[in-house]
Order: sequence, then C-alpha cells, then structure tokens
Amino acid sequence: MTNFTLHPRLAADTIFVKDLALCRVLAMNDARYSWAVLVPRRAGATEIFDLSATDRALLIGEAARAAEGLKRIARADKINVAALGNLVPQLHVHVVARRIGDAAWPGPVWGQGSAVPYRPDVLDGLIMALAAAL
Amino acid sequence: MTNFTLHPRLAADTIFVKDLALCRVLAMNDARYSWAVLVPRRAGATEIFDLSATDRALLIGEAARAAEGLKRIARADKINVAALGNLVPQLHVHVVARRIGDAAWPGPVWGQGSAVPYRPDVLDGLIMALAAAL
Repeated sequence: MTNFTLHPRLAADTIFVKDLALCRVLAMNDARYSWAVLVPRRAGATEIFDLSATDRALLIGEAARAAEGLKRIARADKINVAALGNLVPQLHVHVVARRIGDAAWPGPVWGQGSAVPYRPDVLDGLIMALAAAL
Repeated sequence: MTNFTLHPRLAADTIFVKDLALCRVLAMNDARYSWAVLVPRRAGATEIFDLSATDRALLIGEAARAAEGLKRIARADKINVAALGNLVPQLHVHVVARRIGDAAWPGPVWGQGSAVPYRPDVLDGLIMALAAAL
C-alpha cells in the first residue's frame, strides 16, 4: 500500500479546505458554483466498492455534512453529489450547490464551459465558511 | 409521514429490478448504457442529509453492490454514481456503467441525447443479471 497523494489534476483545480476522518475536502476554484470535492485518503481507490464498509459509511457521512453546509452557505436549491472519475481515476466525490438558473441548470455541471476563478477574498470566505460547517 | 411512492418520471423511464433493505432498484430503459437507479423508500427525502446515518450507510452499501455488479455485467471501464435531482426531486442515486467511447464519454450521461429503448429480450437479460448481482 503506497501513501495517499492527491491527483495532480485535483490539486491544480482546487484549494485545500480541511482533512476529515476519511476525506480531504477541497474547494473547486470556480465562482460559477459553490463546489466541494471530497477525496478519501486511501491510495489506489477508484470506485466506492474499493472502500471498506466502514470507510463507505464515513464517506457518505462526510458528503452529507458538506452537502448540508453548502446548501446553507450558498442558499442552494439542490445539492448534486457525484463520484464520476471518467477523467481523474482517483476516487473523489463532487458536492455541488446548485441554484435554479445557474450556468448549467438543470443539466450537470461537468464539462460545461470553463471554470471562472474566484476573487481571492471571495474564495477565502467560502473556504472559511465550508471549514466551519464541516 | 406519508408512504413511499415512486416519482412518476422515474416510474416512466425505468423497469423494476428488486427491493433491497433501503432502496428500490430500477433499470433505466436506455440501451446506450447499463444504468441502475436506486431510490431510498423514504417518503419526502430529497437530499442525502435527509436520511439517518443508518440509512445513509445502507444507501452507499447498496450503491456499491449495484456498482460492482454493473461493472462486471457491462465490463465497464468506470462506474458513475450520482445523486442529482435537479429535475426529479425524489432522492435517487444513478449507478451508470461507462465504457471508454460510449455515447457521452468522457462527459456525464445526463441531458445527452435521448434514451434508446432496449430490445425486450436484452432488457430482460440485464434485469436478471442485475437482480442476481444484488
């Protein structure tokens, strides 16, 4: 078992928020959506069935906390939670706050347009609010 | 608490496969992908944080079983697991077998083109294989 290291694509697209019991929580640097990414710190995992039952329960619990926090922080109408991994094989879970009429509504956010980087002060605010909610 | 009833849009798009401890498992009638939908039988739930910790652990366990089964049945390269709900608010989890080069690869499947109904015999085979894997 090698040590956990974050996939370089995830590292490039996100900012560190907090380490929970299982997951590293990241914030996507995309001002179009309030968007967290949770990465289980388990080297080699690509599918949810690669995790133990204990880790799976941790994962969905941490995703639920991130979802509930983002719903409140972003006054979201709906939260999208997804483990896709078609481009980045390292297991990671998107938790995306959606609002009716947002840039991709009602479609999914992935592969739609290009990320709009945050103003640094706005990003700092999101990270602090998200870390506090976790 | 009202009784669980399946949202009419999910009922229209899918075929019943099996009831597990928490979820009703459905097969999407779309021959482009091997695609299951898991619906927790909890009236009124729209987000994963609406479920108790016990139900959340059941949900991810059942999703993992469906994912592992579909990976084998469809010889998938990747499984996409997602709770979106932008169009159908009733909490439901998509478990989609993806193959490199499929109709939406590497993008997400939602909102891409139109479903291609199965030939009945092929659909029966999928349902039997999926039910056996759960």
